[in-house]
Amino acid sequence: MENIKLSVQEIAELLSNRQFMKLKEIFADMNSADIADFLKELSNEELLLAFRILPKDQAADTFVEMDDDEQETLIQSFSDSELKAVVDDLFVDDAVDILEEMPANVVKRILRFTEPQTRRRINEILKYPEDSAGSIMTVEYVRLKKNMTVDDAIAHIRSTGLDKETIYTCYVTDLNNKLIGILSVKTLLLARGDEIIEDLMETNLIYFKTNDDKEDVANAFDKYDLIAIPVVDDETRLLGIVTFDDAIDVLQDEATEDIEKMAAIIPSEKPYLKTGIFETWKQRIPWLLLLMVSATFTGKIISSFESALAGCVALTAFIPMLMDTAGNSGGQTSVTIIRSLSLGDIELKDVLKILWKELRVAIVCGLTLAVVNFGKMMLIDRGAIIADGQSAWLVSFVVSITLVVTVVFAKLVGSFLPICAKKIGFDPAVMASPFITTIVDALALLVYFNIAQSILGL
Amino acid sequence: MENIKLSVQEIAELLSNRQFMKLKEIFADMNSADIADFLKELSNEELLLAFRILPKDQAADTFVEMDDDEQETLIQSFSDSELKAVVDDLFVDDAVDILEEMPANVVKRILRFTEPQTRRRINEILKYPEDSAGSIMTVEYVRLKKNMTVDDAIAHIRSTGLDKETIYTCYVTDLNNKLIGILSVKTLLLARGDEIIEDLMETNLIYFKTNDDKEDVANAFDKYDLIAIPVVDDETRLLGIVTFDDAIDVLQDEATEDIEKMAAIIPSEKPYLKTGIFETWKQRIPWLLLLMVSATFTGKIISSFESALAGCVALTAFIPMLMDTAGNSGGQTSVTIIRSLSLGDIELKDVLKILWKELRVAIVCGLTLAVVNFGKMMLIDRGAIIADGQSAWLVSFVVSITLVVTVVFAKLVGSFLPICAKKIGFDPAVMASPFITTIVDALALLVYFNIAQSILGL
Repeated sequence: MENIKLSVQEIAELLSNRQFMKLKEIFADMNSADIADFLKELSNEELLLAFRILPKDQAADTFVEMDDDEQETLIQSFSDSELKAVVDDLFVDDAVDILEEMPANVVKRILRFTEPQTRRRINEILKYPEDSAGSIMTVEYVRLKKNMTVDDAIAHIRSTGLDKETIYTCYVTDLNNKLIGILSVKTLLLARGDEIIEDLMETNLIYFKTNDDKEDVANAFDKYDLIAIPVVDDETRLLGIVTFDDAIDVLQDEATEDIEKMAAIIPSEKPYLKTGIFETWKQRIPWLLLLMVSATFTGKIISSFESALAGCVALTAFIPMLMDTAGNSGGQTSVTIIRSLSLGDIELKDVLKILWKELRVAIVCGLTLAVVNFGKMMLIDRGAIIADGQSAWLVSFVVSITLVVTVVFAKLVGSFLPICAKKIGFDPAVMASPFITTIVDALALLVYFNIAQSILGL
Repeated sequence: MENIKLSVQEIAELLSNRQFMKLKEIFADMNSADIADFLKELSNEELLLAFRILPKDQAADTFVEMDDDEQETLIQSFSDSELKAVVDDLFVDDAVDILEEMPANVVKRILRFTEPQTRRRINEILKYPEDSAGSIMTVEYVRLKKNMTVDDAIAHIRSTGLDKETIYTCYVTDLNNKLIGILSVKTLLLARGDEIIEDLMETNLIYFKTNDDKEDVANAFDKYDLIAIPVVDDETRLLGIVTFDDAIDVLQDEATEDIEKMAAIIPSEKPYLKTGIFETWKQRIPWLLLLMVSATFTGKIISSFESALAGCVALTAFIPMLMDTAGNSGGQTSVTIIRSLSLGDIELKDVLKILWKELRVAIVCGLTLAVVNFGKMMLIDRGAIIADGQSAWLVSFVVSITLVVTVVFAKLVGSFLPICAKKIGFDPAVMASPFITTIVDALALLVYFNIAQSILGL
């Protein structure tokens, strides 16, 4: 891929030297995603200048690959005829993606330059809820009739295929537009010319309804290795298709969203460097505030055991270790459960299997940690404890047994809470490390002080 | 998708009633990924029974979709002729995936039933490093010559296409097998029959070398929306192609791996419920141990300030809140940076931009937290502090100012460490929350006690 990286430098020079013809040739040989990457580095004036140099057939493709703010800049600076040229070349699903991010005045201007039929289709798709299959589908697909021959079908594709987002999966519909079969171009090409579509088409159909979650659609691509999946209404009438490239975007976005939620961040769709300070603050501060206030309860637990702590000050030194271990143990489990739920590896009905597994893993992990901790305390912390007037054996035992109980609690809470969230219809991802940590921290300290009081008699 | 869910129950009954003919019909209408899902639920004997009912053309497809342990069970129970039938129908890249997970004796048995040419290709691919482009490529693609006409090309696809993993992107090579162009079937179908391939083919090629990271290949699919990407050697001779379905698997696996690493888990490729207790323990215990031992230092910091703490016991109650906030702040940043690095949204050269942004976000977040905390302490904790013989104003100020400094430290550490890890060639994902938490916990306490000592004069 080095050849592409190198040329960005050169292109910038050509632009500043106004060697537009040369530049036009270079752009013609570049992929539109790379051109978009390059345009990102330019100032607003340079951006418009460079965009105007683009060969006509690449302008729309490149436009689709750019970020919202650059798209907006361009639309604002476009002449009416330029805008119309770009808008005419967009696929409907791409047009919808762009419209969703633009301010109202820009949306109006774009729609004014869209042909009435396209505008109707765009408005159709805009109606679907944001995370639905309908919102990511396209309406440009190849439609066949069941009584066509293979030759008919190929002729049909040849005459209409140019404007379709994919021609590789064709959809067979009846007179009421009901989806009755699908057929790949591979099957078409490998069949005899006089064979009938109805005999060749696949009738075991995988399809989604417009209101299904787009994440489920994307997961179906992962599972079934398909190029496109049809989207139908309640009477299985074909409304559109989702293509694999949009599914890849959904899978990547959902993974990012899960990761952000797990780290107590409110997800944003913007790339990191495009997000302003205030926006980033808005993504991060709500959870920080909530978790800060929640941690007050953990503090209260320490305060209420102050007199016990005064009896054995050495105990304080182990508080961070117990809190961290509790948080890490719970975090490991909750993150595993959240990701497995979203990949479909586990389901709600597995809850008992999961708790039983986590209980056993927790006991083994807890015991391992306890043994290592006991050894470490007897070797290293012994002196400090004895200086405190306590038995090194007993205090080491208290801390170690707390570890076992804490890890068990943490792993059970870490598996139970995401499943509960899913059960009551929340996104399990918010039940990840930071939230779990706050709860298990408090649990860890309660366990610690109670065990310490009863064993050491404080 | 409900129709598929429903039938699993019914199929189980048919199997137990030995209605094999009926079952065969049902299987013929099911997708192989769904059949594999269903077979998972069966005992070993039932599994073999059900697999033998599968129509021949579905057997290999279904086999590919099953988990390692079921594949192994089947291979162990297959007769020689059954094994040969399945192996003959596998694509080379799928065969390699399976072989990589099987014990040596099973590998030997499979290779014995593979045709010599296929065996040579399998061995070629097995040689590539685990995370390389070479390891996920397939060698079954359509190859065209530049002087063919469109009709020649279509005839060529018709005669050889059946065994190709994708026919939708065709590769044009010269006499030395050098890749000189690519051509989509869409272009072929939309062109006139007498046009020459050389005039139609795309020469602006996106390709990877066999040793390139498979994650980079997968990201290129996300960026360029391609169906397949060619893999070449140092002389750009075509060796294989990677198809979009394998790229989706890589993207999903890499996201899961990043998520696991961020939660201090050693990644595993097995689904959650397939991983044994001991295996799960092995994934989780190393980081738990390491982090437990590291947390000792945080404990040591508390011990060394014991006399200061004795002067104002109320300070102890704020330790958990400060530690949690530090960990959460650092975690938010590190997770954002790690994901952005892996999506290619940011690069190493952006380090100064990132630190400058995080510094400003940290100050705004820190100040917000400090103000809320100050208010909360003056309202709620005031009594406890005064009972301790200290000024509520001063102690609230100490805790609040510590918050600001801590959040700034945490966000800088959280952005710097993942970038450093990337720079020196480590996976940034291990620098996520748990690791960052341990470091910033210690920092938070050092800041806290030092500020407390100097302001409160302890």
